[in-house]
Amino acid sequence: MIGRKLMERLAADGALGGAGITSARSVDIVAPAPLKAPFPIVSEACDIAAPYVPPRLIADRPDLIFLLASIVSGEAEADFDKGYSVNLDGTRLIFEAIRREQALSGGAYRPRLVFTSSVAVFGAPFPEAIGDEFFTTPLTSYGTQKAICELLLADYSRRGFFDGIGLRLPTICVRPGLPNKAASGFFSGIIREPLAGKEAILPVADTVRHWHASPRSAVGFLLHAATMDLAALGARRNLTLPGVSATVAEQIDALRAAAGEAAVKLIRRERDPVIERIVAGWPTRFDASRARGLGFKAESSFGEIVRAYLEDEHVSARA
Amino acid sequence: MIGRKLMERLAADGALGGAGITSARSVDIVAPAPLKAPFPIVSEACDIAAPYVPPRLIADRPDLIFLLASIVSGEAEADFDKGYSVNLDGTRLIFEAIRREQALSGGAYRPRLVFTSSVAVFGAPFPEAIGDEFFTTPLTSYGTQKAICELLLADYSRRGFFDGIGLRLPTICVRPGLPNKAASGFFSGIIREPLAGKEAILPVADTVRHWHASPRSAVGFLLHAATMDLAALGARRNLTLPGVSATVAEQIDALRAAAGEAAVKLIRRERDPVIERIVAGWPTRFDASRARGLGFKAESSFGEIVRAYLEDEHVSARA
Repeated sequence: MIGRKLMERLAADGALGGAGITSARSVDIVAPAPLKAPFPIVSEACDIAAPYVPPRLIADRPDLIFLLASIVSGEAEADFDKGYSVNLDGTRLIFEAIRREQALSGGAYRPRLVFTSSVAVFGAPFPEAIGDEFFTTPLTSYGTQKAICELLLADYSRRGFFDGIGLRLPTICVRPGLPNKAASGFFSGIIREPLAGKEAILPVADTVRHWHASPRSAVGFLLHAATMDLAALGARRNLTLPGVSATVAEQIDALRAAAGEAAVKLIRRERDPVIERIVAGWPTRFDASRARGLGFKAESSFGEIVRAYLEDEHVSARA
Repeated sequence: MIGRKLMERLAADGALGGAGITSARSVDIVAPAPLKAPFPIVSEACDIAAPYVPPRLIADRPDLIFLLASIVSGEAEADFDKGYSVNLDGTRLIFEAIRREQALSGGAYRPRLVFTSSVAVFGAPFPEAIGDEFFTTPLTSYGTQKAICELLLADYSRRGFFDGIGLRLPTICVRPGLPNKAASGFFSGIIREPLAGKEAILPVADTVRHWHASPRSAVGFLLHAATMDLAALGARRNLTLPGVSATVAEQIDALRAAAGEAAVKLIRRERDPVIERIVAGWPTRFDASRARGLGFKAESSFGEIVRAYLEDEHVSARA
C-alpha cells in the first residue's frame, strides 16, 4: 500500500531531489497496477525470496532502491518458514545482488537503498518513552527479521556496498482498502470501517497505546530518506521515525470528532487473546529526536491523522 | 581454545549440575585432540557452514549444546563471504537442525543451547559504562554476525525450539598457545609472550581501554549458563558478562608486577592502523549488573587475570 502511494507520488512529481526520473521498476508479489507517469515504469510480479529474482531486479543498476517487501507481522508469526524466507532471506538476497553488481561494475555501482523496518524491532518491557539508543529485543519473529535486516543494512553500508538507511515506520494508520493479516490491522479498521458506515471489530482494550503515522507521512519519510544527506547518519543507519502516540480511546475520540457518535457505535468490542498478546509486546511511545533532527516529520495528533485519511482518500465522514 | 578448556573441565568433573555426563561430542574445523574422560567423547572435524553437517550433529539429540564455533573478527572483516557463511549461516543451520529435530520428536526435544556472542555487538560512540539496555550497532562484520545470531537465538527460544542463552564474552585474556587472527590477539600477546621470554608487538596506544576476562572465567560462564535457571532471563536471552576494564598501560603494570621490568622491555610498540581502527570501535567498559545478578562472576583486576594465567598454564614468570 505504501509502495503504491509512493509510486503515485513519484509519477505525479516526475522528479526526485531536483533530478528527473528516467525510469522505474515496480515490483510486488502480484504485479502492481499500471500507472500513468512521465517516465517508463516496468511493473512486475516477483517473489524476492526466490534466489533467481534479486539478481534480475538489480541487473540494470538502479540508482535508488526502495525496499518495502515484507510479509506482515501476523503472517510471519503464523508461518515461521515463510517469514524468515521473505523478510530475512529475501532482503539479504537483494543486498547480495547489489554487492555482486558492485563487484561486476568494478566498484562504481553504489546505489542508495531505503529500507522499511518497524517499531516491532523493540520488545516490552519499555521505558516511558523509548530513546534512540534503546536496544532491540523483539517479541515477534517479524520484529526479529526486521532487526536482523537493520544489522545487515548497517554492515553493507559500512562496507560501502550501498548507501543504506533503515526507517522504523510507526504503524501506518489509517490504511485504506481491505483489512490485511497484520496484527495491527484493527488500528486502521476501527477508523476506516465506521467512516464507511461499516462495523469494525476492536480486539483489544481501549487503554492500549500505540505509535502511529499516516500513509501521507510514510511517503514523506521515504522521499526524505531518498534525498537527504546520509553522511549525517554516520554508522548508525537505522532510525526510529516520529509519530503520534495514542490510546485506542484517543483514536475513538478522533473518530467521534470527525464522524459523530453514530460512527463510534459501529465499533464492536470482541477481545482476541492472540492479537492482545502480540500487541502487548509492542512499543507505545518514542522519543524520536534523532529522526526529527534529521528532518523527518509526522502528524502531531491522531485527529490530524484522521483528517489526512479523509483528504487523501476523498472520503466524506458520515456523521 | 575455550572449547578445549571447557571439555577438559567437563572430563575432569564427569558431571554437570549434579547429573553425570553420559556422552559428549566435540567438534571443530580440525578434530579436537582426544581427551581422557569417564564418559565416551566423539571427536570430529566438521564445518558447520556445510548444510549437511548440522543435521548430523543434532541427530542424536544432545540435551546440551555449547555453540562456540566462529571465525574471528579479523578474518570475518577480511573475508566477507566466509564470515557470513560460518558465523551467521553456520549458526542458523544448527538452530534449524534443532528445530527440525524437535518437529521429528513430536515436540519432545528441546535442548539447552549456550551460545558465545561477543562485546563486538556494540559499536562506538559509547557512554562511560555500557548498560544492559544499550543498543547493538556493531562496527565490524563479526559483531554484526554475532548480533544477528543473538536475535535468532532469542526468537528460537521464544518459539520454544530450544532453551537458549547468549553470552557476550569479554575479550578472553590471557589466551594460551599461538597468536590467532583475531584483531584482539595482542591483548593476550603482550602478556603471554614476555612471560615466555619472547618479544610481543603492541599495535595500539597504551591508553587503549578494553574489557577482559580470563579463560578460567570463560569456562565458569559457560558452566553457569548450562546449569542456571533460564526462566530468570525472560525474553531477553543475551547477556553482557562481567569482566575487567583495563587500559593497555594497566595490563603492562600487571605484567611488571608478575615478571618485572625485563618482561615489559620485550613489548615492542609498532602501530597498526588496521587494528587501531577496529579496536577504536570496540567497547571499553560495561555495567554488567544483570549478569552479575544472575550469578556470573569474573576477576576483579587485571593482576588477577595474569595470576589465573600463571596458575592454569603452569607458567613461571621469568623475573
